Amino acid sequence: MSVKMYMQQVGQQARKASRILARASTQDKNAALMAMAVALDNARPQLKLANKKDMDAGNQKGLSPALLDRLLLDDKKISSMIEGLTQVANLVDPIGEITDMAYRPSGIQIGKMRVPLGVIGIIYESRPNVTIDAASLCLKSGNATVLRGGSEAYHSNQAIAEAIVVGLNKVGFPEHAVQIVNTTDREAVGEMISMPDYIDVIVPRGGKGLIERISKDAKVPVIKHLDGNCHVYIDDEADVEKALTIAINAKTRRYGVCNAMESLLVHADIADQVLPRLVREFVSKGVELVGCESSQQYSNEIGLAIEDDWYTEYLAPKLSIKLVSGIDEAMEHINKYGSHHTDAIISQNYTKTRIFMTEVDSSSVMVNASTAFADGFEYGFGAEIGISTDKIHVRGPVGLLGLTSQKFVVLGDGHIRDN
Amino acid sequence: MSVKMYMQQVGQQARKASRILARASTQDKNAALMAMAVALDNARPQLKLANKKDMDAGNQKGLSPALLDRLLLDDKKISSMIEGLTQVANLVDPIGEITDMAYRPSGIQIGKMRVPLGVIGIIYESRPNVTIDAASLCLKSGNATVLRGGSEAYHSNQAIAEAIVVGLNKVGFPEHAVQIVNTTDREAVGEMISMPDYIDVIVPRGGKGLIERISKDAKVPVIKHLDGNCHVYIDDEADVEKALTIAINAKTRRYGVCNAMESLLVHADIADQVLPRLVREFVSKGVELVGCESSQQYSNEIGLAIEDDWYTEYLAPKLSIKLVSGIDEAMEHINKYGSHHTDAIISQNYTKTRIFMTEVDSSSVMVNASTAFADGFEYGFGAEIGISTDKIHVRGPVGLLGLTSQKFVVLGDGHIRDN
Repeated sequence: MSVKMYMQQVGQQARKASRILARASTQDKNAALMAMAVALDNARPQLKLANKKDMDAGNQKGLSPALLDRLLLDDKKISSMIEGLTQVANLVDPIGEITDMAYRPSGIQIGKMRVPLGVIGIIYESRPNVTIDAASLCLKSGNATVLRGGSEAYHSNQAIAEAIVVGLNKVGFPEHAVQIVNTTDREAVGEMISMPDYIDVIVPRGGKGLIERISKDAKVPVIKHLDGNCHVYIDDEADVEKALTIAINAKTRRYGVCNAMESLLVHADIADQVLPRLVREFVSKGVELVGCESSQQYSNEIGLAIEDDWYTEYLAPKLSIKLVSGIDEAMEHINKYGSHHTDAIISQNYTKTRIFMTEVDSSSVMVNASTAFADGFEYGFGAEIGISTDKIHVRGPVGLLGLTSQKFVVLGDGHIRDN
Repeated sequence: MSVKMYMQQVGQQARKASRILARASTQDKNAALMAMAVALDNARPQLKLANKKDMDAGNQKGLSPALLDRLLLDDKKISSMIEGLTQVANLVDPIGEITDMAYRPSGIQIGKMRVPLGVIGIIYESRPNVTIDAASLCLKSGNATVLRGGSEAYHSNQAIAEAIVVGLNKVGFPEHAVQIVNTTDREAVGEMISMPDYIDVIVPRGGKGLIERISKDAKVPVIKHLDGNCHVYIDDEADVEKALTIAINAKTRRYGVCNAMESLLVHADIADQVLPRLVREFVSKGVELVGCESSQQYSNEIGLAIEDDWYTEYLAPKLSIKLVSGIDEAMEHINKYGSHHTDAIISQNYTKTRIFMTEVDSSSVMVNASTAFADGFEYGFGAEIGISTDKIHVRGPVGLLGLTSQKFVVLGDGHIRDN
């Protein structure tokens, strides 16, 4: 069978399964998730064996240590997948909730009912644990899933798929409720993003290159996460101690995450109080610093930033620093160079925090808090399928609700429209 | 200047204007809308003169009477545009509303703030009043607008544009907050739907052909409305009088609207009570009837339906009728042939109404009410920019909220993430 025909078949099967999942009870969905957890636990030896094949091939291909680390499926990661399944089973089921039900002058009642999107396509790279994360969130929200993992994780993903099928069988869900694409042919991705009849939305997970490519070519809506070029602006009316604590946390808690601060903006009038201390702390943690010329007068540890630095999400122990004349210049800089992900102001001034909160056009805007909080767990979603830097459909961390839509329900008792 | 360069310039200007509109006060937005209303009222002679040019050209080109009727801008239609502006000015401004603000265990507070999408592109056909409808809703929701009307309405739209500019000037909004594309070159549409950097969402208004073409080629998200192939299912446990009233209203209130019933499903056990009376009523109103073979035994006024009829949105005094064995067959038919727009069940049975409401996958699902209610005004939105038959971003009638997004706001007081 050609890749195109195979993907069409996967899509048709997913659409069919989605109709059954859409009306599945919460009890059945949770039972399936818990059965998957048990199946994963029972399959530890097989999972590790399958993963070893991928790891061996990866080693031979000379994958980077970082990639191999993501690819590895050890007992700790398996346990974490099992825990994830339990957490998703414990989440409140959003499907079927009716809100805003109210009478209209015509006498009808109208409200909104939360419904699944239908079929979610997930395209991801080498991390096999995404398979379970994504499948469980999609299942809980009543969606069928088509998963296309990286070719490096092929055997691991197929082994995980077997545990998923055990869970689906347990409650009589169709096996096509979660399908893992079984070809590593790149054409499969091209097909997947061109089947609006069968796939309602694509969620790509991975590097910016992958996501840009997919967004550019997709004929299906894409919930996408591009960069997290996050800023912290320390205002001249900031509480200095809070500013230092937050800036250090935002940069050094973890370096490779999208909610890490990549650019620090400091009001020139407070620079002498915060910059020398911050620089000492950053340098002691091995953070490389580049900055504007004015910032350099506060430390000779700051290299000169070039224009490109302001646009860059380092995802590494590196930080760009810029002195600004006030909140307006800070916001202008953020709206120009930022990625509309997460940006914070540190200030005790009421008016300035209010302006910043309203006018900074980012998916998360923070006041006197670390950008590190931008995360589905921290926001109380229980889990996230990604972070959207788009504005359409869903913005910021995407939990179960992002995988749903709402339809209108209208209740009458013989009502007709007479105008 | 090439069309491409011109459209890029329009896009850049819109993006720039959108930043200013996003933080405009409700007071200013309303003042601009009211100033537009006054300007339109003052410009009645010029509007009618410009429209005459379009009408003359349309007559010469041999446009159909229906098209010419849509194109016509008489005093009644101008008054209706003015009234529309007043209504939109009176709507509650959704921008800036913060909801769901709650403390998290970490001590941060998190909520969602409603924000504009940015730049909305509207592509429409010959009705010049769409220019004002769309511009006013986009402005009220803090978005910049790029409007591309049909070439038939070119002069009318340019005249309306002048009134819009008067309104924008009144409160010092940038003139590029609402731009009407001033070329009738078709390439302009192609450019408009391919500028994701400058346009955040496209709302096409017009026939299915236009909308399908745009959706297929767009590189920008599209809020689209395809067919309204709406069904009414009369259950065997329906209240007969309510069923008759609703079916007649749903079909005959207006024929050319997307929320009109196009297909009537009748439980076989109640057919003898409802069909003969319905047929008499429909025939007296000049509605052409086609149906399945079983339906034909109830009247010789019912022609034989072909497979295509079940898929067809007639937008005309024509109706397809099918007898079904129960709610399951009815729902199967609706989910297969319907367009996921609006579908209704007429039944007194609690369980069946509950199942229908949950399992029918349409943007509006109605119980014992006429499909004619599927409308932004009836739903209490005050106005609608269209009806979405999609599930992504917004579904059903699209009011101001559909032109907005939500960002997260996080309030801390020196909070950092320690996990």
